Amino acid sequence: MSNEMTIPASYLKEFTKQVFERMGCPPAQAEEAADCLNQADLRGVDSHGVARLSGYIRLWEQKRLNAVPQMKIVHETPSTAVLDGDLGLGLVTAPEAMRIAMQKARNVGSGWVAVKNSNHYGIAGYHAMMALSEDMIGISLTNASPLVSPTFSKSRFLGTNPIAVAIPAQQEPPFVMDMATTTVANGKLEVLQRKGEDAPLGWAQDQEGQPTTDAFVLKKGGSMLPLGGDRLHGGHKGYCLGAMVDIFSAVLSGANYGPWVPPFVAFLEPPANPVGDGIGHFLGAFRIDAFRPASEFKAHMDNWIRTFRNAEVVAGEEKVLIPGDPEREMTEERLKNGIPVQNAVVEDLQQLAQKFNLTFNPTQHD
Amino acid sequence: MSNEMTIPASYLKEFTKQVFERMGCPPAQAEEAADCLNQADLRGVDSHGVARLSGYIRLWEQKRLNAVPQMKIVHETPSTAVLDGDLGLGLVTAPEAMRIAMQKARNVGSGWVAVKNSNHYGIAGYHAMMALSEDMIGISLTNASPLVSPTFSKSRFLGTNPIAVAIPAQQEPPFVMDMATTTVANGKLEVLQRKGEDAPLGWAQDQEGQPTTDAFVLKKGGSMLPLGGDRLHGGHKGYCLGAMVDIFSAVLSGANYGPWVPPFVAFLEPPANPVGDGIGHFLGAFRIDAFRPASEFKAHMDNWIRTFRNAEVVAGEEKVLIPGDPEREMTEERLKNGIPVQNAVVEDLQQLAQKFNLTFNPTQHD
Repeated sequence: MSNEMTIPASYLKEFTKQVFERMGCPPAQAEEAADCLNQADLRGVDSHGVARLSGYIRLWEQKRLNAVPQMKIVHETPSTAVLDGDLGLGLVTAPEAMRIAMQKARNVGSGWVAVKNSNHYGIAGYHAMMALSEDMIGISLTNASPLVSPTFSKSRFLGTNPIAVAIPAQQEPPFVMDMATTTVANGKLEVLQRKGEDAPLGWAQDQEGQPTTDAFVLKKGGSMLPLGGDRLHGGHKGYCLGAMVDIFSAVLSGANYGPWVPPFVAFLEPPANPVGDGIGHFLGAFRIDAFRPASEFKAHMDNWIRTFRNAEVVAGEEKVLIPGDPEREMTEERLKNGIPVQNAVVEDLQQLAQKFNLTFNPTQHD
Repeated sequence: MSNEMTIPASYLKEFTKQVFERMGCPPAQAEEAADCLNQADLRGVDSHGVARLSGYIRLWEQKRLNAVPQMKIVHETPSTAVLDGDLGLGLVTAPEAMRIAMQKARNVGSGWVAVKNSNHYGIAGYHAMMALSEDMIGISLTNASPLVSPTFSKSRFLGTNPIAVAIPAQQEPPFVMDMATTTVANGKLEVLQRKGEDAPLGWAQDQEGQPTTDAFVLKKGGSMLPLGGDRLHGGHKGYCLGAMVDIFSAVLSGANYGPWVPPFVAFLEPPANPVGDGIGHFLGAFRIDAFRPASEFKAHMDNWIRTFRNAEVVAGEEKVLIPGDPEREMTEERLKNGIPVQNAVVEDLQQLAQKFNLTFNPTQHD
């Protein structure tokens, strides 16, 4: 028996939207939040898609998430702002912040919005990609629950703190990078756990800070390693990047940083004595033509992309990828064939349907 | 016999300044360029200090570097600009770009300047740190001679493309990250070459793209690996970061990118059919109080820094470092005890003295 069910993306999105509406989200916000989770599933980031829906609901039930946030700009200049997310869904506050950043970019060339008092914002790339349609470069950072140790330490002080950058091209698809600043995203360890497989060295360390291949190590007090792994392989650089994301997202905005970032999972209490409000994000937009005519830039991006795509391939590898290629290919495939949803997640969604008096009865996609 | 000589930093800086003046640099530019190389030596980045001086001179002799650049803003908005460096020293064009960025930040909260038609700009951190004295965050990126292969490729298409970010604190010293987007900087391979030692796996690949421990591999057609190393350990993320730096520095500005970036070493010809002008940089500045009162931010930075510095240390390690700590400690030590300069570099400097009718006769520091 298969341990998953394949469900049309549009069905999942519509159901997700209904759940957010029952939670109390205004329809436009429910739509946007549902789209953000749906895009994660389409892009193959299963850990940040519909599988997370019940997690948001649990936070809301604990009053750690506000379904009807009154978002407010609390400080601004022509090119910057701080947005108070009023404890809203990050899936809602981050797009709002991105819209403000884009408006500032329209006015003065670039816009930068730090968000405080927010919650988990889904995939970083979603928000960065909002800029593409207006010939802007989009940038998206967030801090996250502490699971990562600084180099030489065994304290969990940083999240997987992603960096996403979306850059438009002309005839080529856009350049879209969306990366955790750790060796791997947490979801990769969860995949190994389900398969009963070990993790490669360099992904995580045990609670004493020693190298480990145990995929369950986070449940045993261990921690993830910054991009690079150990010091010899540049792990201190991953630590720098994760730290920068934390500071931009939270120290600039007035959110919680480092070990004070509240956990996404509702069964863990937020740390006592918070140093700020909620979690923090940082969104930015550059207008391309604030630097050079957009058509000129995009023609060179086409050349950049084609040049790198045609780089000489190492024997045994298929092709050289451009950031965004794998997620775009996955999206095409999943729009056509549906999204594989694990049975545990299907049950989760059925419970949500029951809780909110909704129907969750997807037809298996062919 | 020792293979190095220890020389007072101030002597090296004064000599460097005189050489740049003899090359034709206006005194203020010679001073700034000398300071940038000197700070590299003080901070322990020996590969980017006075050891590079003769390299700049050789580029100037080949007319690939202009000692009296007429730098010009060729495009701008209130928060952005493109600076044409007129083939000047990056040591001169980047600080100029940073001053423009800071002026824009004073006006509208942030400033972003892409530079084209430039040359090697020394250590990235120097330019980012210019922002600190005005309670701004400084950002500095540059592309560089292609030595790095994209993931799955054996083509050398990227430079070590560094990212530097400098963030002020109150009582604590500033957070200063300055990192190549490769596993290690090129200088680390050169150190191993001199010692006759092998490199760890994950630093480089041979000309077929296979893992190697040969520290001389770059001279044999091999390439450096992006931060993370191979795909399994996140090397594709280092590739993303290096690519982003290349695009911001060169596609936004109109400089050469990817395999077209002209080499620093004068014995290699620049690639035919350039796609832009010279090499490119990208400098940025955020005013802290464009987000929240600077005193509030800096008090939280002190807390961030102290918290991370007090993270639990892994057995066998000395302490947890804050980005910038090692370079600051090195600076204190070298200001006191002098800068160790290899004999080969001392000879190089003596030849420069002869060429320009200068005196290079340093007293060994005690």
